[in-house]
Amino acid sequence: MKTPREIVETMLQQDAFSHLLGMELLEIEKGFCVLRCTVTSQMTNGFGIAHGGITYSLADSALAFASNAYGVHCFSVDTNIAHIKKVKLGDVLTATCTESHRGKRTGVYVVEIQNQEGMRVAYFRGTVFISSEDW
Amino acid sequence: MKTPREIVETMLQQDAFSHLLGMELLEIEKGFCVLRCTVTSQMTNGFGIAHGGITYSLADSALAFASNAYGVHCFSVDTNIAHIKKVKLGDVLTATCTESHRGKRTGVYVVEIQNQEGMRVAYFRGTVFISSEDW
Amino acid sequence: MKTPREIVETMLQQDAFSHLLGMELLEIEKGFCVLRCTVTSQMTNGFGIAHGGITYSLADSALAFASNAYGVHCFSVDTNIAHIKKVKLGDVLTATCTESHRGKRTGVYVVEIQNQEGMRVAYFRGTVFISSEDW
Amino acid sequence: MKTPREIVETMLQQDAFSHLLGMELLEIEKGFCVLRCTVTSQMTNGFGIAHGGITYSLADSALAFASNAYGVHCFSVDTNIAHIKKVKLGDVLTATCTESHRGKRTGVYVVEIQNQEGMRVAYFRGTVFISSEDW
Repeated sequence: MKTPREIVETMLQQDAFSHLLGMELLEIEKGFCVLRCTVTSQMTNGFGIAHGGITYSLADSALAFASNAYGVHCFSVDTNIAHIKKVKLGDVLTATCTESHRGKRTGVYVVEIQNQEGMRVAYFRGTVFISSEDW
Repeated sequence: MKTPREIVETMLQQDAFSHLLGMELLEIEKGFCVLRCTVTSQMTNGFGIAHGGITYSLADSALAFASNAYGVHCFSVDTNIAHIKKVKLGDVLTATCTESHRGKRTGVYVVEIQNQEGMRVAYFRGTVFISSEDW
Repeated sequence: MKTPREIVETMLQQDAFSHLLGMELLEIEKGFCVLRCTVTSQMTNGFGIAHGGITYSLADSALAFASNAYGVHCFSVDTNIAHIKKVKLGDVLTATCTESHRGKRTGVYVVEIQNQEGMRVAYFRGTVFISSEDW
Repeated sequence: MKTPREIVETMLQQDAFSHLLGMELLEIEKGFCVLRCTVTSQMTNGFGIAHGGITYSLADSALAFASNAYGVHCFSVDTNIAHIKKVKLGDVLTATCTESHRGKRTGVYVVEIQNQEGMRVAYFRGTVFISSEDW
């Protein structure tokens, strides 16, 4: 039986997009994950601030890792994100994913994303479908 | 007075992340935008399919362009996306953003994302805040 | 095998809250439902307009009926609603639910709610879990 | 200048729908609210459990009270709710609304709804538009 860290490090190794965004795995347990990334000049939008897709992608990866850490494949089904504060070039984002609920077939996870000053920049929630396929 | 296309081409020129994902502007009007991108090997996740952040980012850019095409700055506030069908390496995604509502201070936009076979892969809705700052 | 209308009329008969809000079933097919209700003085909030729960409840019932009309129990998992236009006392609301996707275990449905003038007042999307229990 | 409690008691007095559902105000501060209601036989759906509109309406009222307690009119714009656990006839629901963010024109609020056993039954987030009209 693989540990949560083994499963998620395997996932992360194959996760080209999380690598492209420079995501680092800080903590991982069943239903819990902390991820970090730094906003580079490749990640800004037409306003010169971080594209909304950056915080979403970080949160979505945290959701994937936290929910898959149990050892069965989970897929996000419906997700939402409120963008609360502008994210600037050079900001260091930390996403913390916690489990609100895990039933037989669906789970609900919340991710808070903070910047390097500890200010919340986005608020994400995702529902996953829990399959029966093992990692 | 700038045209929708002039405004959005200026935005897109400065939008490093949309460039990184290879987004192409196919159509633009006030409240309407069609964007396209192809899923490359940089955009996959730990399951070997497109990261959820790809469809989200494409939809969020389409939202930004459609809502900003009126000539005033608009910022997405709350967004949600349902991932309906797996997106594979090599898939060509087309996001079509239409306006559901535009009031004085808030607007609501829906984005449908289809693959090259015309199958819907994701369903996005976003609420924007309409500022008073001109482009 | 029960027809969609038989299933949903059985559901509606037992659905005390939909009755309390005076919901009428106008159309029903697998994956499709049209419901109507009129805003009474019991349904207003502290601003003297319809409580947000009215449009949500109407949409959620439409989702339940459209998704259950296939003959197996479906439960809403994650739902969202954008309130676009104020709903007033006496307004007649019509909710039209269409199916965006129906897979093996999850389905995605969109509901548009219009008033008696054909103006859209709210925009709803819901993801359901499809169980294996028959009606 | 009215206190948060004065403002919200005025709102609640005029809020016919919150009364219909038997909502009681337990705590109120700027950006914070606790509301309670009991699931009666009028509030069940076609499955014999609480209609999804009950938890939504309770959460939406808590959002309205918490955000309006500052003394200016706030309107919910985009809201979402995950239904985590079935709510049964006789259950006593407590909704606790906390403020995630309050800017100049928009605010984000989270509401957790628990049953009488302290189990979370639903998870709600709402974005409000902050007007310039005083209570």
